[in-house]
Amino acid sequence: MSNKFYIPKLAVFGVGLIGGSLAIALKNAGAVGQVIGVGRSLENLNKALALGVIDEVQSDPLTATKDADLIVLATPVNTVIRMLEKIEPALDYRKIVTDVGSVKGEIAQRAKSILGDKISQFIPGHPIAGKEKSGVTAAAGNLFENHKVVLTPLSSSDRHAYAQVERMWLTVGALVTEMDVLSHDRVLSITSHLPHLLSYTMMNFLSNSQEKDKCYEMAAGGFYDFTRTASSDPEMWRDISLMNRQQLLRHLGEFQSELSGIAELIESGDEQAIETLFASAKKARSLVSDRRSSD
Amino acid sequence: MSNKFYIPKLAVFGVGLIGGSLAIALKNAGAVGQVIGVGRSLENLNKALALGVIDEVQSDPLTATKDADLIVLATPVNTVIRMLEKIEPALDYRKIVTDVGSVKGEIAQRAKSILGDKISQFIPGHPIAGKEKSGVTAAAGNLFENHKVVLTPLSSSDRHAYAQVERMWLTVGALVTEMDVLSHDRVLSITSHLPHLLSYTMMNFLSNSQEKDKCYEMAAGGFYDFTRTASSDPEMWRDISLMNRQQLLRHLGEFQSELSGIAELIESGDEQAIETLFASAKKARSLVSDRRSSD
Repeated sequence: MSNKFYIPKLAVFGVGLIGGSLAIALKNAGAVGQVIGVGRSLENLNKALALGVIDEVQSDPLTATKDADLIVLATPVNTVIRMLEKIEPALDYRKIVTDVGSVKGEIAQRAKSILGDKISQFIPGHPIAGKEKSGVTAAAGNLFENHKVVLTPLSSSDRHAYAQVERMWLTVGALVTEMDVLSHDRVLSITSHLPHLLSYTMMNFLSNSQEKDKCYEMAAGGFYDFTRTASSDPEMWRDISLMNRQQLLRHLGEFQSELSGIAELIESGDEQAIETLFASAKKARSLVSDRRSSD
Repeated sequence: MSNKFYIPKLAVFGVGLIGGSLAIALKNAGAVGQVIGVGRSLENLNKALALGVIDEVQSDPLTATKDADLIVLATPVNTVIRMLEKIEPALDYRKIVTDVGSVKGEIAQRAKSILGDKISQFIPGHPIAGKEKSGVTAAAGNLFENHKVVLTPLSSSDRHAYAQVERMWLTVGALVTEMDVLSHDRVLSITSHLPHLLSYTMMNFLSNSQEKDKCYEMAAGGFYDFTRTASSDPEMWRDISLMNRQQLLRHLGEFQSELSGIAELIESGDEQAIETLFASAKKARSLVSDRRSSD
């Protein structure tokens, strides 16, 4: 890169964990002039202002977009689509829009019909970073360091717009990967959406059990880690589950078949087959583990 | 307790993570005279001897039992039963036997028929402690500190024998809980055996996916924690799954029904019901989380 990445005016829609952390990280890098915070909750925006995460509060999406060079939609996935509808009149080829949603297929499809020719300026994105805590008070400038960010450009995407969004994420220390929209939704359904669903279900399963008091008493480290994602925001995960329902339901069905297969092996006492399955899972897990420690 | 707990001669069958950690902790507490290590692998026993975890290697279960005051069967669950058969001739009312198996029902039932009247000297136990790593090199003297140990005495259990096993665990810093055999197996099936099965299955599901390379690349913190237990020893978990199959299959079936119910809600797009389920799971998880941080 010959010249330093710099955004004169950045609009962040949804100043929560992701939006807030991005604003902080760009400020820390000296890569942004002014940050306009946009959102539903004036209380949250004022908190972000007091914390220095944003420089200006704006409740009107259209006004914020008119003022901004780069617009980051860091709202829940459903709201991304509503916001695209609202800001469309203020978009032109000098502005760039990106989002951070965990589902890309439906957003890309709806964006095409909402934005028309201006779709070239929209670069869908998804930072693979987060914690169970949410809100601007959980935001941190190092959230994206060494974390993957997936960009899923469309065939109509403007290359300059793509390059700018890529540079924004590189500037905050992220590792940018390009993927097509469908691959993204398939992969994330397996690595994230299905595990969330299983984790939520396991937690409810325990709390609905007749022995729930003893279960709470006996739940140890393994259970704690297994159900960590059940602490995630219910509204956000409701929307993700519904928006990626096609992939998620397919994978859930396949996963259920696998479970039924293992149930049969246990029922019939097939020691060898059970051990083989567990051993191959252990081997596969070591690949996840190795990769993580080498990050 | 009026006098200090002290075992002149302790025999540990299976000097791995649990058996090794118990020997180290009792030595650190000055609560044991001599530790006899018993096991299949002479290499492992010699390693334990070199590390000072045990003081004597003994390959013959009967000889070890003749010499010992307290016998801890820290072998895989299947082997516990085989070892009870082997040591039975050397047992009498002055000796105490306990085990550390994750399943108690089948062990208790088999022990009754193997030991006859001597069953009074057998106190089934289960320390809720562990890590994915196994073997004596992973053993540590603080493994049981503030961890639960469940004892499941039988109606025929000798009260003095029970009190001695309880004191042994208290001496190494554990929190001892009494439960009946059936409750133990039901509760552990929910808090441990089913999550292990789901975690192993999820890991295989990812590694059998067409997009496995991208899945490995995208697997982040949530997936890593969700599948932590898939790194557990396959042979050990094969045996646990089979030995507790009655409870495990019942719970797996119920869990599958829950999953099918959620799939229907996602299919039909029932936002309110999905959010309610996720919110109740989040609330239940906070109870696990609060309890853990107060430990």
